[in-house]
Amino acid sequence: MTRSKNKGVLMVVSGPAGVGKGTVCDAVALSCRDVFLSVSATSRKPREGEIEGVHYYFKTKEEFENMIKNKELIEYNRYVNGNYYGTPAAPIDQHLEKGESVILEIDVEGGKQIKKKRPDAVMVFVVPPSFMELERRLRGRATESEEDILARLERAKVEFELSAIYDYIVVNDTVENAAEKVKAIIAAEKCKTQRCIDEIRKNIQGGNL
Amino acid sequence: MTRSKNKGVLMVVSGPAGVGKGTVCDAVALSCRDVFLSVSATSRKPREGEIEGVHYYFKTKEEFENMIKNKELIEYNRYVNGNYYGTPAAPIDQHLEKGESVILEIDVEGGKQIKKKRPDAVMVFVVPPSFMELERRLRGRATESEEDILARLERAKVEFELSAIYDYIVVNDTVENAAEKVKAIIAAEKCKTQRCIDEIRKNIQGGNL
Repeated sequence: MTRSKNKGVLMVVSGPAGVGKGTVCDAVALSCRDVFLSVSATSRKPREGEIEGVHYYFKTKEEFENMIKNKELIEYNRYVNGNYYGTPAAPIDQHLEKGESVILEIDVEGGKQIKKKRPDAVMVFVVPPSFMELERRLRGRATESEEDILARLERAKVEFELSAIYDYIVVNDTVENAAEKVKAIIAAEKCKTQRCIDEIRKNIQGGNL
Repeated sequence: MTRSKNKGVLMVVSGPAGVGKGTVCDAVALSCRDVFLSVSATSRKPREGEIEGVHYYFKTKEEFENMIKNKELIEYNRYVNGNYYGTPAAPIDQHLEKGESVILEIDVEGGKQIKKKRPDAVMVFVVPPSFMELERRLRGRATESEEDILARLERAKVEFELSAIYDYIVVNDTVENAAEKVKAIIAAEKCKTQRCIDEIRKNIQGGNL
């Protein structure tokens, strides 16, 4: 008798630049065998050391435009430089069907596109403990000009107000704390009645859980 | 500078007799310093070994009826034998204000009353892995007649269908697993945007997190 399996959780993670959301997502995926990070498709050329299917799915412009036409992407965007970036649906659905969860790190605009196509997506917004701390982290990266840092800080304040459309807010005080919260959100979402009641109903009758 | 504190989570836990919800709630409260079990008030006489404020708040019938009149209870019930049982609001609110969470173990009827008065209550329904397993557990208690066991099983099946009004369903396969899920639900609920955004907004501006 096969045990009925719940579908995994599709989680969107957004947050201002410099907040450390990538590190938090990596920590979650590393410590959970059944949580995976979504891999984007792009039409830009691979850089040294980038691996197909790990960093990106690399596509030609024509291939990418075909994916758009065939509705194979749950969101996409074309940058000023002409390169496409987007999220293919198929690899995500493969994980979800197996009961595995997928984390999709994306900006607020992309997050909105996804929520529209996948209303069951769980939306998480990562914030710094304070804007002062965010400024410290941005300066710590030492990759940007003063002007860029101030622009990012301004943008973070604007974006914070957009976080109201997200389901959850996680404060990234330490990576460990924030990762624990993200894991708790995935575990809790799997217990949501609308998500699990059909499967539980099957299992509870058959006694095959 | 005082850090703004989120209010704790008020959690209602229901489930069929014999499912082990009491054991799960105890396990959660024992392993979390900031989670407390709600204590009921009753007009019945204390039994040997029962401690005021631990097992129950013992009240006279008159005191209990005054509490009803003064709206000091978030739910109450009068049993066939004439005894009142109910949940005083004040001790719960004291915990919540301190950022501590409170678990209230109660039947589906009581759960409904609470949800009405406290729409922010988080509703958790505990189910057995299967009805076969529930039957085994009920027989294992060896405190009831065959007739009682069959009646409880029937009731469990009816109650399971009522679980649809609950926010979360937790399968009690092992106490450890179920307690972990309850803890994850509390942690996740604390990150819900509507619950935390005001406090985070205060903290993020002041840099006092």
